Amino acid sequence: MHHPQTASRSGFSREELGQAASDILARLRTHAPRVHCITNAVAQNFTANVLLAAGCVPSMTLSPEEIGPFVAGAQGLLINLGTFDAERREATEIAVRTATQNKLPWVLDPVYIERAPPRAVFARELIGRGPAAVRLNHAEFSALGGSTMTRENAIAYARAKHTVVALSGETDLVTDGERVATVANGHALMAKVTAMGCAGSAILSACLAVESDAFRAAVAALVIMGIAGEHAGEKSEGPGSFAVAIVDALHSLDGPGLSARAKVD
Amino acid sequence: MHHPQTASRSGFSREELGQAASDILARLRTHAPRVHCITNAVAQNFTANVLLAAGCVPSMTLSPEEIGPFVAGAQGLLINLGTFDAERREATEIAVRTATQNKLPWVLDPVYIERAPPRAVFARELIGRGPAAVRLNHAEFSALGGSTMTRENAIAYARAKHTVVALSGETDLVTDGERVATVANGHALMAKVTAMGCAGSAILSACLAVESDAFRAAVAALVIMGIAGEHAGEKSEGPGSFAVAIVDALHSLDGPGLSARAKVD
Amino acid sequence: MHHPQTASRSGFSREELGQAASDILARLRTHAPRVHCITNAVAQNFTANVLLAAGCVPSMTLSPEEIGPFVAGAQGLLINLGTFDAERREATEIAVRTATQNKLPWVLDPVYIERAPPRAVFARELIGRGPAAVRLNHAEFSALGGSTMTRENAIAYARAKHTVVALSGETDLVTDGERVATVANGHALMAKVTAMGCAGSAILSACLAVESDAFRAAVAALVIMGIAGEHAGEKSEGPGSFAVAIVDALHSLDGPGLSARAKVD
Repeated sequence: MHHPQTASRSGFSREELGQAASDILARLRTHAPRVHCITNAVAQNFTANVLLAAGCVPSMTLSPEEIGPFVAGAQGLLINLGTFDAERREATEIAVRTATQNKLPWVLDPVYIERAPPRAVFARELIGRGPAAVRLNHAEFSALGGSTMTRENAIAYARAKHTVVALSGETDLVTDGERVATVANGHALMAKVTAMGCAGSAILSACLAVESDAFRAAVAALVIMGIAGEHAGEKSEGPGSFAVAIVDALHSLDGPGLSARAKVD
Repeated sequence: MHHPQTASRSGFSREELGQAASDILARLRTHAPRVHCITNAVAQNFTANVLLAAGCVPSMTLSPEEIGPFVAGAQGLLINLGTFDAERREATEIAVRTATQNKLPWVLDPVYIERAPPRAVFARELIGRGPAAVRLNHAEFSALGGSTMTRENAIAYARAKHTVVALSGETDLVTDGERVATVANGHALMAKVTAMGCAGSAILSACLAVESDAFRAAVAALVIMGIAGEHAGEKSEGPGSFAVAIVDALHSLDGPGLSARAKVD
Repeated sequence: MHHPQTASRSGFSREELGQAASDILARLRTHAPRVHCITNAVAQNFTANVLLAAGCVPSMTLSPEEIGPFVAGAQGLLINLGTFDAERREATEIAVRTATQNKLPWVLDPVYIERAPPRAVFARELIGRGPAAVRLNHAEFSALGGSTMTRENAIAYARAKHTVVALSGETDLVTDGERVATVANGHALMAKVTAMGCAGSAILSACLAVESDAFRAAVAALVIMGIAGEHAGEKSEGPGSFAVAIVDALHSLDGPGLSARAKVD
């Protein structure tokens, strides 16, 4: 059932993927894509600041009256299931419909679906609506896919659902069911700041706005966040200053520094 | 249609407006006005911290049961249309009614009305309810007033609507339809931090609580935020540390430093 | 009506309570309790980061569909009445019922009940539902208890309601109606950062997850927040950097440093 052969036929070397991340970052700076985020109440402010620092233009409304025009005018869309209430459910329905009509790629971040069964059910329905990518952690993958998170299960899941799976962990894993890459950038304090993963998913939505290959976009997003985290780790004394420093780092990150530091395999 | 003559008859010199800003800041510290904010989900925390740093007492509830007493007990009120949903719409209705009954001046910040037609319609209705001031950027002005943002159009709009227009841009413009002032304080990173404009509108609401001349209050608010931004720019390495430093700067700003640094014309 | 004799029969020395705080902090690090927070929109992000820094796992959903499983899977629960709307009211109903069924201790933080009568009515109902502790300031105590905040009134209230009262002020007061302790740790800038009290109540919820004596848990929470604030005060230049530094301080706080610095009487 698993296809290591196929998987290694990615045709990308580490250098090429590092270079792709650098190119995609440059495009974010140039195109300043509008990224609409349906995201949780805890993450909204931090996510907006992360997107702005990377050169993007965030919007966050959940109002059913407004979300159609906002999504129609955006180049990227994030559906994050944290603090998922009726308002966000309705907003998601309109947003995904609008994105589909406009052929706008979107990202699903199924936060904490292992903690609330109704949220997991909704996440599974959303997978059927064709997200370009799903970003999640191991516990969320198990709740979503019904199987333990392993490299093989992730590849099989991505292939079956025709999506890119971007799994965060000590080493991140990205697969579209054929190609597989791991990203080893990052810093331990990223797990101690709320909404760090949510903000990473927003960056992935932004990368999809400027890169049509969702696999490359996902690798780029993980490299960008991971390396920004490494820079932040050098300047911070704990999770408070780390959250500030990663926003600074995203703002000053440049392409050459990115490709030199990327740990992609 | 435009009245440069009238406009220049403001009777304020640069020094006088700088001094007014300094006086108004001192009154914020002394009177600690309560400022109630109907504002967007992204801006709530930052806005509250900005108000606290300036010496004010923020409150933020949107609940229809509660907002009447909160507004009745406040000295300032902000209506910010970011993430504008049914809850905020109902809250606004009650808040504006209460403010009108209590002769409490209020500020409208029509965030992103160029992105969502229903929000623009609501903003135009609110203009008819008599805000003391409207704070917005050029794109929002065009969506609100139906004309390109020019100095003359802003003056004509303020006169027609009997309000003060405070336009943020590279140089800010304030007019009540008769008097016109420009404020050239500020820092480029202010545009890279989410909710910076929203927080500025909250400071304007606070200034109106201690200064009955809305024109002076608006100039003071722009000077206070702009100079705090200049101080923050000297201490920060990117938008993350800038957002922290501007709160520190607002807290330590003093009157003499303010009037010396004000760039009002 | 007041019982100074009884009150002094606490049987705890200053050293013992400082040591208890140190032990409770160590248990937070070891057990990483899940703490669910129904809290206001202004406080959600900061509260989550404070809990993470202290070693806990926060969750924040308000959705009626989800809150049952989230609370059932948590070891701590906070009910904070800031920005208290219909959604939070319904969430609270489900959360308190679930907590009662699961014998999960919970904390009530009746934010700003002196500003909105309906919120005060709801707070009084909640007191009847048996919170393990109530954390509040003097104005909130007066609105809740119907009497001026004095040491004697606080003791009488705690005894009558079978709860622990944790009163923040220049010196904090903790009483379960029999035992009384004061905590003199803290820093003036704590009053200039929004949601600082809310975050402190979340830390109290976390302490209750690892300490069954609510009196000791409350003393520990106030000592932990107060000493983190003292460390932050040494490193900050205003309320912006203070809010960052207190999160760093909570992350690096250790038991011996805590018991040495505790000012408990």
